[in-house]
Parts: sequence; structure tokens; C-alpha cells
Amino acid sequence: MNQRVHARYWIETAYPLADAAAMMAGEQSTGTFVRVPGETDQLRELYAARVEQIVETGAVEKPSLAGSGAPRAHSGPLTRRTAEVTLSWPLENMGPSLPNLLATVAGNLFELKPFSGLKLLDVTLPAAFLGSYQGPQFGVSGTRQLTGVYGRPIIGTILKPSVGMTPEQTASQVKMLAEAGVDFIKDDELQADGPHCPFEQRVPAVLSVLNEFAQKTGKRPMYAANITGEMDQMLRRHDLVLSRGGSCAMVSLNSIGLPALTALRRHAQLAIHGHRNGWGMFSRSHATGMSFIAYQKFWRLAGIDHVHVNGLRNKFCEEDASVIASARECLTPMFPSPHPGCQVMPVFSSGQSADQVPDTFRALSAVAPGCVDLIYACGGGILAHPQGPPAGVRSLRQAWEAAAAGVSLPEYALRHAELRAALETFAS
Amino acid sequence: MNQRVHARYWIETAYPLADAAAMMAGEQSTGTFVRVPGETDQLRELYAARVEQIVETGAVEKPSLAGSGAPRAHSGPLTRRTAEVTLSWPLENMGPSLPNLLATVAGNLFELKPFSGLKLLDVTLPAAFLGSYQGPQFGVSGTRQLTGVYGRPIIGTILKPSVGMTPEQTASQVKMLAEAGVDFIKDDELQADGPHCPFEQRVPAVLSVLNEFAQKTGKRPMYAANITGEMDQMLRRHDLVLSRGGSCAMVSLNSIGLPALTALRRHAQLAIHGHRNGWGMFSRSHATGMSFIAYQKFWRLAGIDHVHVNGLRNKFCEEDASVIASARECLTPMFPSPHPGCQVMPVFSSGQSADQVPDTFRALSAVAPGCVDLIYACGGGILAHPQGPPAGVRSLRQAWEAAAAGVSLPEYALRHAELRAALETFAS
Repeated sequence: MNQRVHARYWIETAYPLADAAAMMAGEQSTGTFVRVPGETDQLRELYAARVEQIVETGAVEKPSLAGSGAPRAHSGPLTRRTAEVTLSWPLENMGPSLPNLLATVAGNLFELKPFSGLKLLDVTLPAAFLGSYQGPQFGVSGTRQLTGVYGRPIIGTILKPSVGMTPEQTASQVKMLAEAGVDFIKDDELQADGPHCPFEQRVPAVLSVLNEFAQKTGKRPMYAANITGEMDQMLRRHDLVLSRGGSCAMVSLNSIGLPALTALRRHAQLAIHGHRNGWGMFSRSHATGMSFIAYQKFWRLAGIDHVHVNGLRNKFCEEDASVIASARECLTPMFPSPHPGCQVMPVFSSGQSADQVPDTFRALSAVAPGCVDLIYACGGGILAHPQGPPAGVRSLRQAWEAAAAGVSLPEYALRHAELRAALETFAS
Repeated sequence: MNQRVHARYWIETAYPLADAAAMMAGEQSTGTFVRVPGETDQLRELYAARVEQIVETGAVEKPSLAGSGAPRAHSGPLTRRTAEVTLSWPLENMGPSLPNLLATVAGNLFELKPFSGLKLLDVTLPAAFLGSYQGPQFGVSGTRQLTGVYGRPIIGTILKPSVGMTPEQTASQVKMLAEAGVDFIKDDELQADGPHCPFEQRVPAVLSVLNEFAQKTGKRPMYAANITGEMDQMLRRHDLVLSRGGSCAMVSLNSIGLPALTALRRHAQLAIHGHRNGWGMFSRSHATGMSFIAYQKFWRLAGIDHVHVNGLRNKFCEEDASVIASARECLTPMFPSPHPGCQVMPVFSSGQSADQVPDTFRALSAVAPGCVDLIYACGGGILAHPQGPPAGVRSLRQAWEAAAAGVSLPEYALRHAELRAALETFAS
């Protein structure tokens, strides 16, 4: 098993960079605060993490985070430098196990005293992990097969209000949305099995509506039923969705954890829709946590098929550059050919409408020219369209047609009334 | 189910505080960015989160986190105020489900644009959660029974080097530590099932040493075997520990997630030792994430018996006041009598020795006079004692005797050579 795990970090420290990086490597492999007799040279040579690279990136006047320390010998004004540090570990240390990998690359490091900032930017895993994990079952092409949508984004929407609707009200909203032409409908992450809207009533009601719609029209929108719960509940709910003709199960990733997702994936015959609610805890500070680039690799390998990436000009704090980097990464292979790349569908959402389509299209063209492999989820962009939800859906399809044809939205809107109304209503 | 979940947050915002709090409540219950037809007054009345309290705490000149916004109408210099906000939700919204509770109280909130800081400080749960979750099986009194240690802290230690030892080397270190007199020995969080030290070889080797030791001496130190892994692996490893006479299984909480812990707890006949590695991602920024007070409630209810709280004058960034608050909370009931309080053993570690004992004792006396319900884990404080590990353990027992007797360490050290040597070596 002569393979290594690599992890890249952003750090901020008052220590010499080489010392700081060595402390990171020591803490997360053979080291301890006190050198113990068992830590021989041979042991270190075999199992110690290696500092692979240190790239200094700048300096800061004030520490980003409180509580860090300075070298003892230090006197005079303190310079805190920033750098990108790459460490590597032999796979021998933790084996191809995602929970134990997480303890290694994202364990005690964040709290180490020499660091006033430390963030995990990326991980690169040996293909041996593919022996333990299945990766996405459906991914991009499977999701297209399940929805029957090709050559354009999957137009999605989220059931709102987030909570409070009965199973019957939910089903009736789903009917309206299916008739409006959406390809994909998801539960809100706040609604899984609330006592006023039990999963076992809501999901059969919703799927019955969609089955009827499919019989009439030949089109079957994908419904991501929020199965988030305990392990046994999630498997049971998966089976209920499957037995009623559904094709997708949604989970709140941070609520369930990696081993639950891995177990669900082993059992799954449905596409797994990964919601990242709570992601802000990992991302909101520039100085701690982890980047989405690193985060999504764990979940892709464990088996999600879709994952949320926010959207351009979203209503949250995330910048467009970050959204784009996240979406591109979802579509970039995790392992070199001939290994599976484990690509997943990025899900755009939050304040999305026709308005952001050309920029989103351009951003994804960097993955592959004309790439439209995404779920484009709109709430208000559909429901608040002045001509009604069907026109809202049409405005989105028109916007993507325009983008693919290289025609500007205003120009395309001259001959497409729904798009024109959308631009008048939603343009930023 | 006329019960409510409460959550208290620290916020920093340029918006009027009442508006900001209302946005939090809306986002995490019935609201959406665009008011939809289904969000009726009646629905809001039944299911909307309530703003229970807003306590302004100050103002900041610069935003703690980047990316936040200001009210549109705003002009002139921006004041960002800080406050503590308490929200409440009807249990009807999510039911007594920890994963779905987490999506509600710690979901999208952190990324909301009006906030340049938002941290979850505490949650208060209705006792209905005790219908779904078992809480700690052993807790404080059960851990005392399993270890046979009464009237003083459980003196523990961590196997080091963290990784690199073979199963035989590990067992031989355990033998040395048992003979030194420790009550508790844990695997490092970096060592679960590394290919060079497989769980199925290490754990039988270690427990065989401890069984032999128990036969000879009548004393059986508790060994927290790191079972962290996939769901099926964890249950299998639990059973192996049990079948070889072990009494404790350790898991990396952030690696495994709540549903895996709940499933493990349902299966468990061993005490569950909760390691919080990765905790820095939630705690290092004052402006995002969650407090340990909130965090540990989820895990206690799901079923841990012990949880790490760092230690006084530790080698990490955490301040003493935070360590103390965490430890006290572990020993404070989560639910009022006659419900179970779900108290768990706080585990002190990181640079601990005899030196911190009096302050630790004083800090825990606030829970109950003379309270010594903790695991006091020392690495160097035992192994680096100048008279050897047995003297290291004796120095710790002496320090706790002194604290309980109200005698200062220097005074007690006059007649206790091991303590004297410890103070000379480790005093801060």
C-alpha cells in the first residue's frame, strides 16, 4: 500500500513557516507534545506525515483568530505570515477510511496554538479509496436518465413554505409545479418527518400525484424526498420512496455524517441528493474550517449524486467566484482515468432566475464547452413569475436556450414573452 | 405535542436587531425569500419560529466576517451591533429527531447575508427527545463501576506515538501503563484500523494484556478502543471489544455523525468515549459555528458516556474559562428531574499534569462541592515524570488528594516525593 494522501492548507502563523508546517505534520501523525521513547527514527520515517510544499502568500497585521501563540524566544513586533502548506501521509496510517481520513486531515490541527488561522483547502486521495467506497451511483448521466432531461439543465424547485404544509397541501403544490413543467422538485431541508407532515403520509401523496402526472404526460419529474433521520429510518424511507415509484432521496449531509451516507449508498437504488445545510459553519470564516473543494470530495466518494453549491448573485454571503469553483469541482474527476471520476450534479439555488443563466453557462463552459450539467433550482424565479409558474419555467428554459445559442437574454427576450417578463421582474 | 425547542445565538449585524432576529426565525421555519401563496397567517401562527428574546450586547467597528450586507435604505457610516437572540420552534416542525433538529437550529442561518457573525450558543430541548434517544448508558456512575475507581478522578492516558506502533508494541505500552497504575487508557484518534496496526490484531492484544493484569492485581484499567469507521465496522468492532472483556469504545464524533452514534448506542454494551477532534472547525472563530454547550447536548442525548473538553493551561488555543464551562456543562442535567439528566464524564487532556489539579478541582466544585467526576488524562505528565511512569501516576493521585484535602500542592509535596518531582518538572 505504497500510496499517500495529500492535503493542502492555508495557514496564518507567527512561527517560522517551516516550523509551523512541521508541527502540523507531527501533530497529525507520529508526534506528541512530549517525545516518547516509542517514537523511533524508523517509525517516523515510515509513518510521519511529510511537509511536501510551503508557499508563502503574504502577511497580516492582526491575527485572524484569537488565542494563538508566538514562539517563546520572540521579542519585538510580531509578523504573522500566511502560506499554503501541503502535507502528505502514507495510506498505511489510516487506511482507505473516510471517517479516519477526516480525523487525520481535519482533526486537532485547527486548534493548534501556533496558528491564528488554518483552513483545509483540498485533499487528494489515492485510488485505493475506491476499493472501500462506491462513489455516486447515478451522477450526471444517471440523473439525466432518471429525469429524461438531456441537452439542457434540469430545472428544479423547492417546496415552500419550508414547513407547515400538510401532506395533502404538499402534494397539491407538487401537482401545480409538475404542471408548470419543472423537472425536479425537492423537499425543504426543514421538512423531513415533522409530526404535522409525516414522511409516510407526505411521500406517498406526492408520488401518487407524480405517478398520475407521468401516466398522463409521459414526463416524470424527480422528487427528492427528504429522508434525513436515524439510520434505520433513512433506509426505511428510501424503500418507501422506491416502492412508490420515486427516484431520489435527499439527505442533510452535515446532519447525518459520512458513515450513514456510506451505509445509505450501499443500500440505495435511488439517486442521493446531498443538501449541505450547516455548511456555513465550515465556510463562513476565511481562517478556519474547510473549503468546499475538500468537503465535497468526502461526500462524492461516499456516494452522493447531487450536491448544493449555492448560485450566482445568491441571497447568502458566498461570493460568485466561490460558487463557480464549487460547481466546476463537482464536475471534475476525483481520480485519473481509467478510475471512475465520481462526478456529481451541482445544484444551483438561492435567488436564482433567468437573470443569472448566461453567467452560469459561461462559468461551466470551463469544465467543457457547452456544459449544462447542473440542476438549476428556482423558487421565486418560478413561483413569482408575473405570468405564473408555467411561464416561470418557460422563462428559464428560454434563458438556457439563449445562453447555449450565444444570444444575449435581452435579444432572445424580444421573441420570448416569458423571458421578457422574467427579466423585467428579476433582473439584478 | 405542545412543546418547543429553544436556541440562543450570538449575532452581529448592521440590520435593526428586531429585523435581523425576524429574518433568522423566518428562514428557519415557514419563510422564504419570496412570500409564497401557501404561507398563510394560520400556518405562520402554528409553525413559524418565534423570537423569544433579544439582548443587545455591544457594537463593533469592523465586520467579524466578510460577505455580509446592509439594509438597502442605509446611508452613512454603518453600525454593526451584537446581541444574543433566543428563538423557539414548535416541536411539531421537526419532531424529536436530532439530525433534523440540527438542520433547523444550525442550518442555513450561518450564511444569511444580514449577519457578519452568527454563532449557536445553546439549545434547550423538550423532554420528548428522551422518547427517541437513550442518552448515556453508563455516564459518571457507570464509568466508576466499570473502572472500580471511586472518590477521585479517573486517571487516564493516551497511547503515543499516535500512529506507527504495531499491535504488539501497543500491547506492550499498555502493559507498562497498567503497571504504572493508570485507570484509563485510550487509543489516539489517529489510530483506528491503520493497515500497519489493524484493529482486529491490536485490540485483542491489548485486552489480553489487561485481562492478565486484572487476574494478577484485581484492577482492570478501562481501554477506550478507537472503533471509528463505517457503521458495520463500528458494530463489529464493538462486539470484538466486548467479547475480549473490554469495557469501552471510542469514536471520533465529527467523523461519524449523529445517526451513527445513535445506532451504536442502541447496540452498545460498552461505555462510549466521545472524541471531538475537528471541533476547532466549529469553535475557532468567535463569529461562526457553535459553542460546546450546544454541541455536547446533541451527543449526550445520542448516547456518549465521556467527552473531551481540553484541559486548563492546555497546549491548544482554548481559554481556561471555556474549558471550565464545557466541563461543568457535561455534569449539569439536560432535562429537569424526574427525567434523566444525561450527564457524562468530562475528559480533561492536553498538557495536563499535577500542576493544573487544584485549579481543576476548584472549577468543578461549582457543580457540586468536592466533585471529582472527571477523567484526567495525562501523556507527558505520566510518561515524562523524572522518576518514571508509576511515579507520574502517583504524583497525580497525590495532587488530587491534596486538592480534596484543601492543602496546597507545595505543602503536600513536602511529604510526597512524586508530587514534588512533578511540580519541579511540570509547574507552569
